[in-house]
Amino acid sequence: MSTTTSPASGTQTLLAAVSAGTRVYDLGRRLSIGMPQSPNHPPFWHALPRRHGDAVRVDGGSAANDIITMGTHVGTHIDAFSHVSQDGRLFDGSDAADAGRGGRFAELGAHTIAPMVRRGVLLDVPAALGTPDGCVPGYEITPQDLTRTAERQGTQVRPGDVVLIRSGWGRLFGDADRTRFVGHDSGVPGVGEAGATWLADQGVHAAGADTIAFECLRPGAGHSVLPAHRVLLVERGVYIIETMALEELAAAGVHEFLFVLSPLAIFGATGSPVRPLAVVVDA
Amino acid sequence: MSTTTSPASGTQTLLAAVSAGTRVYDLGRRLSIGMPQSPNHPPFWHALPRRHGDAVRVDGGSAANDIITMGTHVGTHIDAFSHVSQDGRLFDGSDAADAGRGGRFAELGAHTIAPMVRRGVLLDVPAALGTPDGCVPGYEITPQDLTRTAERQGTQVRPGDVVLIRSGWGRLFGDADRTRFVGHDSGVPGVGEAGATWLADQGVHAAGADTIAFECLRPGAGHSVLPAHRVLLVERGVYIIETMALEELAAAGVHEFLFVLSPLAIFGATGSPVRPLAVVVDA
Amino acid sequence: MSTTTSPASGTQTLLAAVSAGTRVYDLGRRLSIGMPQSPNHPPFWHALPRRHGDAVRVDGGSAANDIITMGTHVGTHIDAFSHVSQDGRLFDGSDAADAGRGGRFAELGAHTIAPMVRRGVLLDVPAALGTPDGCVPGYEITPQDLTRTAERQGTQVRPGDVVLIRSGWGRLFGDADRTRFVGHDSGVPGVGEAGATWLADQGVHAAGADTIAFECLRPGAGHSVLPAHRVLLVERGVYIIETMALEELAAAGVHEFLFVLSPLAIFGATGSPVRPLAVVVDA
Amino acid sequence: MSTTTSPASGTQTLLAAVSAGTRVYDLGRRLSIGMPQSPNHPPFWHALPRRHGDAVRVDGGSAANDIITMGTHVGTHIDAFSHVSQDGRLFDGSDAADAGRGGRFAELGAHTIAPMVRRGVLLDVPAALGTPDGCVPGYEITPQDLTRTAERQGTQVRPGDVVLIRSGWGRLFGDADRTRFVGHDSGVPGVGEAGATWLADQGVHAAGADTIAFECLRPGAGHSVLPAHRVLLVERGVYIIETMALEELAAAGVHEFLFVLSPLAIFGATGSPVRPLAVVVDA
Repeated sequence: MSTTTSPASGTQTLLAAVSAGTRVYDLGRRLSIGMPQSPNHPPFWHALPRRHGDAVRVDGGSAANDIITMGTHVGTHIDAFSHVSQDGRLFDGSDAADAGRGGRFAELGAHTIAPMVRRGVLLDVPAALGTPDGCVPGYEITPQDLTRTAERQGTQVRPGDVVLIRSGWGRLFGDADRTRFVGHDSGVPGVGEAGATWLADQGVHAAGADTIAFECLRPGAGHSVLPAHRVLLVERGVYIIETMALEELAAAGVHEFLFVLSPLAIFGATGSPVRPLAVVVDA
Repeated sequence: MSTTTSPASGTQTLLAAVSAGTRVYDLGRRLSIGMPQSPNHPPFWHALPRRHGDAVRVDGGSAANDIITMGTHVGTHIDAFSHVSQDGRLFDGSDAADAGRGGRFAELGAHTIAPMVRRGVLLDVPAALGTPDGCVPGYEITPQDLTRTAERQGTQVRPGDVVLIRSGWGRLFGDADRTRFVGHDSGVPGVGEAGATWLADQGVHAAGADTIAFECLRPGAGHSVLPAHRVLLVERGVYIIETMALEELAAAGVHEFLFVLSPLAIFGATGSPVRPLAVVVDA
Repeated sequence: MSTTTSPASGTQTLLAAVSAGTRVYDLGRRLSIGMPQSPNHPPFWHALPRRHGDAVRVDGGSAANDIITMGTHVGTHIDAFSHVSQDGRLFDGSDAADAGRGGRFAELGAHTIAPMVRRGVLLDVPAALGTPDGCVPGYEITPQDLTRTAERQGTQVRPGDVVLIRSGWGRLFGDADRTRFVGHDSGVPGVGEAGATWLADQGVHAAGADTIAFECLRPGAGHSVLPAHRVLLVERGVYIIETMALEELAAAGVHEFLFVLSPLAIFGATGSPVRPLAVVVDA
Repeated sequence: MSTTTSPASGTQTLLAAVSAGTRVYDLGRRLSIGMPQSPNHPPFWHALPRRHGDAVRVDGGSAANDIITMGTHVGTHIDAFSHVSQDGRLFDGSDAADAGRGGRFAELGAHTIAPMVRRGVLLDVPAALGTPDGCVPGYEITPQDLTRTAERQGTQVRPGDVVLIRSGWGRLFGDADRTRFVGHDSGVPGVGEAGATWLADQGVHAAGADTIAFECLRPGAGHSVLPAHRVLLVERGVYIIETMALEELAAAGVHEFLFVLSPLAIFGATGSPVRPLAVVVDA
């Protein structure tokens, strides 16, 4: 088996690699009522308008269905470039207020995020820092931490990659006390301006983390300033993926994978809920 | 380059196949206010609670965000096995009314649909029928049509595949008259009980179509009976994907591809909006 | 019994008048899924997240509850002054875009509409026009029609009143064809600029009608221009109430009543669903 | 001026009483994002899909509009008899699960609550208990407290009345710490089974309070058992109104008034947001 110049046989190679036995890691969190989220966004809610037995068709069949209401920055989600502005401008230089006129961002909305089928890498920062369970609350992950992590893992970060930064904070997602994952009082670990700049300098396509806000939050500061968002979304054109589930991937020692993310093409939105995947071939 | 028994090098093969130059076909419809959908489900709506300029942070940054409300069977979506019951039973034999108690299907909800990274095939039925633009309204696609299409294309349908059935009806999705795609009065082409049985007999994992209801709707009959849903979702355990965008794939003559679908893990829901992908290697 | 200068006894008079036997006419439409509404607004939807039997308390009790999602200009509703602007200005002269910054109208939002407990009058226009079932589609109700109707009824319109204008169009609210009440193609009867000016000149506090848009819509024109909204909401400060149920009141020949309307105090909204009442004393 | 047997003149008496100068007390809370509410219900959210300037009509006019999503038991609201069941039965003896089939309560839903134009009385319990600011957290208001309060005020409770019980807890509604009004840990004052029975024995039509749950919540107990709901909604057919604003009424010493409440006629719902009014005649 080999890659060739023929499209068909290239696809065959891909299918052969997959059929050889893939393992698909689910990097998304379950959407459920009451899950932790930022209070700045409309909460997730779900109900069944119709249940089985409500109305049975003449042939004995019945259908149940749903209603959901939510923000797009709750659960695992990706930020579109329309999400953040700096000094009144979006990534493309457009006037941010004008860009949203009409109640949707026609140019940089979630519908413009191309689906991603790319090389992905995991940077297991707390493993490299010697605190494998997780970084301490409010810890700022530095460029040095990122390079040290990559070296320790033997992982190269390449242009076009999607880089997922594990802080270990994801272990709190299911905590009975839902305020812990939000972490307003404690602070939350993540990269700061320097780390975001380092990521952009590597030419990455998107960066993800296992926290709500992706970046370092100081104790009590909340979302008062978000410099990594500015660097990535406004200045450098790097997508941000938040509230990811990275524990399983880290526990399996998987640091390199095919990363797949297919956002809902919500016209004009500032983000989309997603369920990203890490695909590896077992054999 | 070759596949080996080492996990790492299997993944390398996969990544090499991808980096050789993939083409990703977007099989999902854009979610926008007013798009055609079944009136049985809560309509899609979107708004921006916050726009740029509403509140500017001390550092000159601002964030815009969204609220969405929708059913899960609007736009491109996948049906969970909890969606349909027959004679009061779901696919796993459970009592359908009991299964939904609490307002969510803990056992067969959308959160139980494993992400799909599989071989996918397109059956371009109208091309085989000699009416390449599309089947006539209300036309029932038969097992003979399906086998004839596969043969004409030189496509094998294999166990575990995801089979996408183009009827051509998707050309009406963007029609200014939104009732045309819904097709209540005209009827809509698709497989019937026989075609669904044929698909299940091939051992397919999921089946999709470019219409709202997947299956053949007779003129004026609407959703009064849905035998293909019964066969696939209740009797045979085959997922159904609806309102897909298949025109571009068909126009490109792509009949075999890596199919990727990652439903939102909405706890207990009967379905999920999705944006499925067809991945091929160009070179 | 007499009114006196004592507060307590004034209230006693009121209570005595009420306890003597009131009749309360419900001027609101039932909110139900699929009811006719303007497609410009988020549709009404309702579901029961929890039903009885989902979770039973230790003492044998259970509670069911709801989720609703809707626009505020669906069903019977009142328009706040924030709803309409002219040449970029609201009724208070403020910049309309500025006023809505932050996603809510702090100054002229629905929460600023004082509850109404006022004299109300019904002007049964089609009865006066000799077409008691209703005005013809698209008919513009003129000031002459309004004065003629008031004279025929022996009704005085006084400053501070709430004036309800029956066009008879409300008979179509429950029509199986939901597009009839919306009336895009047919046009809808109502006052135009002249009628609105007449109402404002009488010093009325609010004006209502049995149609979605309150004012005359020409066949096929939809909501392209709404001069009565401009006159009443922007220039003169008169509230507008829409989609009212006036048939029962008209059939009973009730032309004068205590009008009660208590909008939901939705902070910053452009309107509110309401269920207005006409109260008369029977004996 | 006198009441007569003529309907018209009865209404004249009513209008004269009103025009003599009414004062209308607003007993509803403002609906705003982030207000305190029970976590058991879908939170209130509001956004402006369209703002002024988004789209300007040819004549220089523009319209802004809203989307809201919420439970019906958030903010000031009334419970329909469908809200609570005991041992599987509703107030009318019907099977509670059957009654909600189809996702709506056709028989006892919010649409069946007749608008109220009735005598209302305020029982200012903490004033009578000598703790005028409010009852202590978790305090159970007894029948003795209620009779003592009525006697102290010189207020008679009569059949058909709406009785509003002030606990003083409403002062916490606007507290920066939103958990205080919910009061899970502290407990919340209110009547218990005995107080509810006393209310029903007086033949009252509805009972209201300034707390979320109406009834006494023990510290830490939350909504584990709600005996007053059982007595009033299931056994005796008395409506419950919650999260009322009673401080202004109490401060003014108004204990008797015309009570007006007009719930949204939400078909099949278990409750409705409301903005109840207390009307008194000043002179």
